Amino acid sequence: VSERKPIRTELGWSSADRIVVRGKSLPDEILGHMNLGEFAFFELKGRSPTPQESVVFDAIVITLVEHGLTPSALAARLTYAGAPESLQAAVSAGLGGLGTVFAGSMEGASHMLYEAVEGRHADESLEGIASATVARFFAEGRIVPGIGHPIHKPVDPRAVRLFEIAEEQSLAGDYVRLMQLISKEAEAVSGKVLPVNATGAIGAILCELGFPWRIARGFAVMARAIGLVAHIAEEIENPIALELWRRAELEATELSSTVGA
Amino acid sequence: VSERKPIRTELGWSSADRIVVRGKSLPDEILGHMNLGEFAFFELKGRSPTPQESVVFDAIVITLVEHGLTPSALAARLTYAGAPESLQAAVSAGLGGLGTVFAGSMEGASHMLYEAVEGRHADESLEGIASATVARFFAEGRIVPGIGHPIHKPVDPRAVRLFEIAEEQSLAGDYVRLMQLISKEAEAVSGKVLPVNATGAIGAILCELGFPWRIARGFAVMARAIGLVAHIAEEIENPIALELWRRAELEATELSSTVGA
Amino acid sequence: VSERKPIRTELGWSSADRIVVRGKSLPDEILGHMNLGEFAFFELKGRSPTPQESVVFDAIVITLVEHGLTPSALAARLTYAGAPESLQAAVSAGLGGLGTVFAGSMEGASHMLYEAVEGRHADESLEGIASATVARFFAEGRIVPGIGHPIHKPVDPRAVRLFEIAEEQSLAGDYVRLMQLISKEAEAVSGKVLPVNATGAIGAILCELGFPWRIARGFAVMARAIGLVAHIAEEIENPIALELWRRAELEATELSSTVGA
Amino acid sequence: VSERKPIRTELGWSSADRIVVRGKSLPDEILGHMNLGEFAFFELKGRSPTPQESVVFDAIVITLVEHGLTPSALAARLTYAGAPESLQAAVSAGLGGLGTVFAGSMEGASHMLYEAVEGRHADESLEGIASATVARFFAEGRIVPGIGHPIHKPVDPRAVRLFEIAEEQSLAGDYVRLMQLISKEAEAVSGKVLPVNATGAIGAILCELGFPWRIARGFAVMARAIGLVAHIAEEIENPIALELWRRAELEATELSSTVGA
Repeated sequence: VSERKPIRTELGWSSADRIVVRGKSLPDEILGHMNLGEFAFFELKGRSPTPQESVVFDAIVITLVEHGLTPSALAARLTYAGAPESLQAAVSAGLGGLGTVFAGSMEGASHMLYEAVEGRHADESLEGIASATVARFFAEGRIVPGIGHPIHKPVDPRAVRLFEIAEEQSLAGDYVRLMQLISKEAEAVSGKVLPVNATGAIGAILCELGFPWRIARGFAVMARAIGLVAHIAEEIENPIALELWRRAELEATELSSTVGA
Repeated sequence: VSERKPIRTELGWSSADRIVVRGKSLPDEILGHMNLGEFAFFELKGRSPTPQESVVFDAIVITLVEHGLTPSALAARLTYAGAPESLQAAVSAGLGGLGTVFAGSMEGASHMLYEAVEGRHADESLEGIASATVARFFAEGRIVPGIGHPIHKPVDPRAVRLFEIAEEQSLAGDYVRLMQLISKEAEAVSGKVLPVNATGAIGAILCELGFPWRIARGFAVMARAIGLVAHIAEEIENPIALELWRRAELEATELSSTVGA
Repeated sequence: VSERKPIRTELGWSSADRIVVRGKSLPDEILGHMNLGEFAFFELKGRSPTPQESVVFDAIVITLVEHGLTPSALAARLTYAGAPESLQAAVSAGLGGLGTVFAGSMEGASHMLYEAVEGRHADESLEGIASATVARFFAEGRIVPGIGHPIHKPVDPRAVRLFEIAEEQSLAGDYVRLMQLISKEAEAVSGKVLPVNATGAIGAILCELGFPWRIARGFAVMARAIGLVAHIAEEIENPIALELWRRAELEATELSSTVGA
Repeated sequence: VSERKPIRTELGWSSADRIVVRGKSLPDEILGHMNLGEFAFFELKGRSPTPQESVVFDAIVITLVEHGLTPSALAARLTYAGAPESLQAAVSAGLGGLGTVFAGSMEGASHMLYEAVEGRHADESLEGIASATVARFFAEGRIVPGIGHPIHKPVDPRAVRLFEIAEEQSLAGDYVRLMQLISKEAEAVSGKVLPVNATGAIGAILCELGFPWRIARGFAVMARAIGLVAHIAEEIENPIALELWRRAELEATELSSTVGA
């Protein structure tokens, strides 16, 4: 037993008369004293946000909640059609696709920014870091995360607004500026329109708030969980999953059965 | 094509220059104008909450975020140990267990309360409904959802606090009162200590807020998604999953290999 | 420590020089000595199948592997589109929908047959049990599981073939006969065409093989896992998920943005 | 409509009187004519295996089914404890952890072997390729996938047996030999005991069978689905999930509540 690593958590515990989250009494010090965003920040970081941090935190999470009929929402609805008794399984299915393609650029942007700033030389300017970063990504044939958007051009209005909010709350520091400079540098070098997109803005703001890049994707996950519950609520009222299935199967069967004839 | 049911959603859509959620412009009318709880309510119901509704809504979601090293948190951490590149899969795994055993009583309480009130006779008192409801559940051998707790006795401090908050915000109506009466009636009939528990309080408040019982479980899902991201963040810093595995395997192997000798 | 319930499993364990599954050495007694179906049966039941059981077991699992572009396959493909680094998350998503609607009737049929036979009176005929069972389901307003099919009429060719195979292997006993009688009785009482369908045939054969009804759904799960890996393999070569997304979003946006104009 | 990419699949379709998988009639040409392993191969590759391929295919899948109380099995059992009505969600949870840590080395081994052989110079020996491959991995600070094992030393008996079976079936070609040479070379260069392990053997055999490395992980997924259903069947009979929870929570609460005192 002596070699055992202890099983522990700082997050929460309860006894017959106490229910504690992060060292605070849930009924006495949290419920009615914090709003949802403040509590989520507190749960994730172990301290309450400042009013400024709270505004910025809420804005980035809200941005990630609802993106319409995404693959994630479709997967959740299709899963619900087969297992309406398991709403949780439908949300699980929808979250499973928040990987490198859709949620990954947020993580990538945070990672890039942390690395760039940590590796900074004593008197290196942010412009210098931006140039070096873009040069490195281009040399390695990697896509610079957090910039460019297939639809929202020449700017992604969410990124503009998120940076504006960060600025208003005095939380637009070096990471935000570096993200903007990287976008400008990438546009200059490539000759393409590559504005900071929503995931780039969120990635930068996560750095300003001090969240580790390894959980950046978690912001999409917890935000989308809200959105997916709303999609299931709508699916109950006005189902589309069976129609998606019917159409797909019909088209595929027509193609296959003709070929096979 | 004419027979096709349309594929549509009221939740969100975007074009080159607009990003709309529930009819409002995300960058212009939502970001910086709503906090996270207000937006979640708006996303789920299609209208903004009143200040009173917002306080109560936040309190019920917060109550569901963090319950320590639950099976759900353990499953998420064990999954992360095998697929650290897929934080989303770990959260999916953890949410998959929010079924009838842990999240179901919230759903059951809402369902019971809606049915009881909808089936109310013109001049039936809440006391009468409570008696009839408890009698029906007992006669059918079913557990009355939302009352009783293995640890928190004689009261569940979360339920007490949630009802207090609902009262303060003038949102403790017939559903809250009926839930309390059902607890009293069940205690009287059974002779056991059966206080309203957290899931009973949340189930009743969900009725007060007008959320359908079919998505009651979704409140646990979206709340726990936040908690599970925090568990993964902690698991990265101070992992316990491999220790849980090591202990389980060691104990099982000792038992099996001895038997098999 | 004395109060602890032991953590154990009969399924498998390993030490430095031994790898044991269900009491047999994996390298020495299993690999090269059992085929996949025999091993799956052995893993699930703790004993090897007879040659007859093996043929029937394989037939029911094979029947469940591939059903074309089902909601389950679509959910897996849509999930893969967002997280191609997590093939396992795509399969997880696809399996999540194997609930009451699609996989449940197999479970329901097994459950119904076990209950009917266990509750049998000493000299009750199978015909009598069938009548009583159908009468009970109709009286309770419940759908009789395992019969009827929206497309495959007047017979489901899979059910016919599965029963034929069970017969050839001398494994079509009372459960199979009772399932057939229930179908006939339900047709007589309702006046509808209600042949035993694939899930009814599988449910009955699971009873013949002695598998508990509580894991009946697991046969769909393990079979479909194979099918979903094949769908992902095809999705890699010839992706359709993004096209499904594009179409859904386009249609929904046209409807929403017009309404919102 | 003309710009639409067609939605199609080669895997399966059905009409009122036909049920077709990969071009064959399921009831007439598959059920009773193929065993489970043959059908799985057929479903995945679009052609039936040779008898030799079938033996080898079954052996690699069987190897992956059951590894005792792994994190994957524990996650499935913990999930089942909360949602016993959703066996499929428990299996989904268990599969979610088959990522880079446990299933990834199989994928990595296949990928490495395909790349090494494809990049082969006209007259390059397998020994030369092995040296170059090991040198490249070591230079890049990457772990060579498919070799070494924390417990099974100096050999992994599964790998030995799988290669023996492949040899017997005349399916141990260049990929198997290259995997063995890479192990020898890595041992020579590093001075460590680095035998080919089970995932390395499976990775090599998947190349011999011509399966793409991108779906290598899928073999673990479909195999483990069988194992996880068996774990749930055992969990129903002899549950351990709640005991795992009880112990974890007790230990964590003792540590936290003492600290918080």
